[in-house]
Amino acid sequence: MSYQIPEIDLKALFLGHKGENVDLFKEVLLKMVDEHVGWRQNYQTQDMPIITPFDKSKQSFQDTSNHMRSVFNELSSKLRSQSMPWHTAGRFWGHMNSETLMPAIIAYSTAMLWNGNNVAYESSPGTSQMEEEVGHQLCRMMSYTAGESWGHICADGSIANFEGLWYARNMKSLPLAIKEVAPEYVDGKSEWELLNMTTEEVLDIMDKLSEKMDEIKAKSARSGRHLTKLGKWLIPQTKHYSWLKAGDILGVGLDAVEAVDVDSTYHMDIEKLEARIRELAAQHVPVLGVVGVVGSTEEGQIDHIHKIVALREKLKKEGIYFYIHVDAAYGGYARSIFLDENDQFIDYDKIDEVYARNRVFTDMKLKDEWLTEDVYNAFKAMSQVESITIDPHKMGYIPYASGAIVIRDIRMRDAISYFATYVFEKGADIPALLGAYIMEGSKAGATAAAVWTAHKVLPLNITGYGKLMGASIEGAYRFYNFLKDKKFYVNGKTITAYPLTKPDFNMVDYVFNEEGNTDLEKMNKLNHDFFDYSSYVKGDLYSNKFFTSHTDFAIPDYGNSPLEYIQSLGFTKEEWDRVEKVTILRACALSPYAHDPEVFEYYAAELEQAILENLTHAMYE
Amino acid sequence: MSYQIPEIDLKALFLGHKGENVDLFKEVLLKMVDEHVGWRQNYQTQDMPIITPFDKSKQSFQDTSNHMRSVFNELSSKLRSQSMPWHTAGRFWGHMNSETLMPAIIAYSTAMLWNGNNVAYESSPGTSQMEEEVGHQLCRMMSYTAGESWGHICADGSIANFEGLWYARNMKSLPLAIKEVAPEYVDGKSEWELLNMTTEEVLDIMDKLSEKMDEIKAKSARSGRHLTKLGKWLIPQTKHYSWLKAGDILGVGLDAVEAVDVDSTYHMDIEKLEARIRELAAQHVPVLGVVGVVGSTEEGQIDHIHKIVALREKLKKEGIYFYIHVDAAYGGYARSIFLDENDQFIDYDKIDEVYARNRVFTDMKLKDEWLTEDVYNAFKAMSQVESITIDPHKMGYIPYASGAIVIRDIRMRDAISYFATYVFEKGADIPALLGAYIMEGSKAGATAAAVWTAHKVLPLNITGYGKLMGASIEGAYRFYNFLKDKKFYVNGKTITAYPLTKPDFNMVDYVFNEEGNTDLEKMNKLNHDFFDYSSYVKGDLYSNKFFTSHTDFAIPDYGNSPLEYIQSLGFTKEEWDRVEKVTILRACALSPYAHDPEVFEYYAAELEQAILENLTHAMYE
Repeated sequence: MSYQIPEIDLKALFLGHKGENVDLFKEVLLKMVDEHVGWRQNYQTQDMPIITPFDKSKQSFQDTSNHMRSVFNELSSKLRSQSMPWHTAGRFWGHMNSETLMPAIIAYSTAMLWNGNNVAYESSPGTSQMEEEVGHQLCRMMSYTAGESWGHICADGSIANFEGLWYARNMKSLPLAIKEVAPEYVDGKSEWELLNMTTEEVLDIMDKLSEKMDEIKAKSARSGRHLTKLGKWLIPQTKHYSWLKAGDILGVGLDAVEAVDVDSTYHMDIEKLEARIRELAAQHVPVLGVVGVVGSTEEGQIDHIHKIVALREKLKKEGIYFYIHVDAAYGGYARSIFLDENDQFIDYDKIDEVYARNRVFTDMKLKDEWLTEDVYNAFKAMSQVESITIDPHKMGYIPYASGAIVIRDIRMRDAISYFATYVFEKGADIPALLGAYIMEGSKAGATAAAVWTAHKVLPLNITGYGKLMGASIEGAYRFYNFLKDKKFYVNGKTITAYPLTKPDFNMVDYVFNEEGNTDLEKMNKLNHDFFDYSSYVKGDLYSNKFFTSHTDFAIPDYGNSPLEYIQSLGFTKEEWDRVEKVTILRACALSPYAHDPEVFEYYAAELEQAILENLTHAMYE
Repeated sequence: MSYQIPEIDLKALFLGHKGENVDLFKEVLLKMVDEHVGWRQNYQTQDMPIITPFDKSKQSFQDTSNHMRSVFNELSSKLRSQSMPWHTAGRFWGHMNSETLMPAIIAYSTAMLWNGNNVAYESSPGTSQMEEEVGHQLCRMMSYTAGESWGHICADGSIANFEGLWYARNMKSLPLAIKEVAPEYVDGKSEWELLNMTTEEVLDIMDKLSEKMDEIKAKSARSGRHLTKLGKWLIPQTKHYSWLKAGDILGVGLDAVEAVDVDSTYHMDIEKLEARIRELAAQHVPVLGVVGVVGSTEEGQIDHIHKIVALREKLKKEGIYFYIHVDAAYGGYARSIFLDENDQFIDYDKIDEVYARNRVFTDMKLKDEWLTEDVYNAFKAMSQVESITIDPHKMGYIPYASGAIVIRDIRMRDAISYFATYVFEKGADIPALLGAYIMEGSKAGATAAAVWTAHKVLPLNITGYGKLMGASIEGAYRFYNFLKDKKFYVNGKTITAYPLTKPDFNMVDYVFNEEGNTDLEKMNKLNHDFFDYSSYVKGDLYSNKFFTSHTDFAIPDYGNSPLEYIQSLGFTKEEWDRVEKVTILRACALSPYAHDPEVFEYYAAELEQAILENLTHAMYE
């Protein structure tokens, strides 16, 4: 069905930080449970219940159900005493989490009663179709061409990243395999040229070779051959550690994974990227691929995807080609804020108009503070890359675990697929065995139902998810402005907060430093201790009034990228060289409520007090 | 907490095929929801609700909630019209599914409200501890030594299998890396000897080299080196296709993955395995590892793990060593039927006594029919292998998606882990960042809560899961005996059912053949058409009275293993050589009710009629 989308009120879509919508939650949950039970009862109505009233009156039944109730008492106690209060409207400024969408939670819970397994269409006709639809919705969010692109749900972003490298690795090796099996199709090409063919060229040749496809695939990287010839996999210093695991697991090897420096605002340095690619080319080392990050794990920054794409266009003319994968595990859903009511990428000069019409920001000054042309262009250029990781369980506000990957050209699927017979369902273009086209095997139909339901309720454009992204960004900028140069007075000492950089998205990194302190180690200790009191470590989870997360930027990973920031705080280069790392506090602003000026004002006062308390603990305990 | 386990009544632990326990289900579900909401309300009680009564009366709120209700109507309709009725007590004899444990469903649904992310302890203190506990429970179920072994939950069995190969691959390469970094520790060993060191030897050396560990790891297979030297990965012909993906993805390469023939009862042929290993050794090709399957995907057969272990002991004396991974994705939980009330492996001659005491079978004759010494010894020997895949979402009766892997020696963890600083939580030996020790990153705390709750309610021994396994095996043998040589009369033609082989576990494979038919293609068509009418393909999902699944045994995968069976049905060897495959129908008997003689009797009559109808459709439509 397609729906007339009403003006979306985000407040109707969450359980609420105080459970405000618990009645609505239970209403829909129980309706779905009842409809499921009705379905069980009415399947072959002549079949009688097996668990009879007499069974239920037995001692063993009573004992077993009481035993189960006791275990649930323990489960409830453990969860209540040892869980993070993500759901709070304004006290959790830590890891990328918040409460998740009520429709997604209910859909997951109740689809689980049917327990479809999306590995095979046979095991889950309904939820397999939902997963296929979700894949196409995510492609559309990336402005990939309908009918030519494809995507699916993964366990998480790491698995999606592995799959991205798997695609790149096998694709890059195909020309070498074609050379062996059908040399006439790559006639006259040197090995260097074979390893620099474009994805499109390779797929076009493969189209003509469908009868030899299995033979060619058998001689591609999947055989274990060519792995050492494929070249370097270039990632930014801000990489997620899954990219190291990817290099290891996929057999490309860590020796082939290289980090490219980021600049002082934590974007991959495109000049350095170009220089490195040219340097490698001079040594006849190909570049297997380049990863751009949209929403870096520790900073939320958006790599300049448009510049990576432009660089590739430029180098293509010189016979150099590389695969591009965008790791948008974190930031992928944020592209919805650039799509208008018809899912078209909004012209830059129309943005204010569209946002005003859809009430995306309560304060357009904060939007102006946030949006730069680089951020806009980076999101726009995502449509040009081969594959993209997008995590519904991050900015999709879906419960764990749900990652996803989309590919620009559905034909790439054959580079990694199994089985000679490419069986699809009833002309619907849905794989009979999805497991033959992806890394995982069995997978929950419930996840597909949760994401599908969320996407149906909240369209992936400015009318739906775009509003939620706007709320998140606005909340982040309120927190950023709240924090900027704020001073706390602890027993006569002045502690100042310093944001790391202006956020491209919704993450605010910051440190506290004592006035006059030039000892970097001392500052790191202060921030680390502050984290301890603002987390599970020393802060009692339930009575703690402020939560944040932390990370270290150290030279082995970040090089000297943090130096400019460090110096702006009054530390010397010598001090940086001595200590070699800076401990950073990190706030992902995902609360769907903190953008509201009234809400934020209340919490700002609360946080000021709570931060002061935790700073005091950190300094004197 | 530890519980006094009452006599477990399985009927109290499922929603019921007619929703018989819906009251109990809702009682516990709503109690957990209310306790969650209470927790939200009482976190910082001074914080006011944000979604106010006035907000709820707004038009946009009403519209949005009605929009959500409409989407749920669509979701409910899609699920009810396009889901498989796994839950039926006696009509679903297809893929490995049935209804799942009520405590697991409720635990998942409600733990999801807290939405812990087990990638990091920080994000999920409660559910991270549960996952650690579940890992140790699964180790105990395998009789791995407590304190020395470890395990964790994975997205599914494919990922667990990949991780098994990842362990094997990196472990096998470590001696080559030690040779480079600290040659004095492997002094005088040839490359052949390095590649045939035992897992224990390698780990003992690594213990002494902890300061050089990172340097050694950097020169192990993770670097991309040595991959072509590690030798062959031997799997039985009955392998799951994830083992092909594993070879591809892990960079070991499909060229290094070899299938070992199975015998006519679908067990890896140990004589052929030995012969092949000796042949490889003669060419100085090492064996990276051998996979034994406990519960093969298509037959449910149990490879003779004890013979693989014995073969390794024998060959070790000749300087040949290989890693053993057991793929017990399907059959892993079945080991619980061999563990007594204290989790000790039951002596073979005590089994009847223990089963009688715990009322495991309603008819011990069926137990006698099932249990062979080979099955017993195969399960017993699992404690001797390096790593095991076990899927809670198969015989653990947990909803998708939940796989798991356990390792015998926790020290192996370092072979695949990331980060130089091995940080653990509060002396609790729980990784601060679980993602650094496993393939996946973010993962649902709810999965851990579901498995943990199920294991608490149903202990992993004869008092709990063992009873459920017994019910499943007894149900399978009832179905097997029902089917054996049963004749159906369709318009004057006689159709006979022929089981493939006596089940080692709970899976019954079978074919129908028309009396006197010697055309294998015709028989395959009959069975394929029968499947179409007994599945989503042509059978309307909701009105269909019998469900089964199907598979093809074809020469490229199975060689001539099916020949003996084919000949017993009256086909010639020439016919087999001509057609090259046999289409098999496949019934996994997971219903927790079908072991009951009264229940089975009712369904046997129903099935006889339903099968006759579907055969008639298959032959005349």
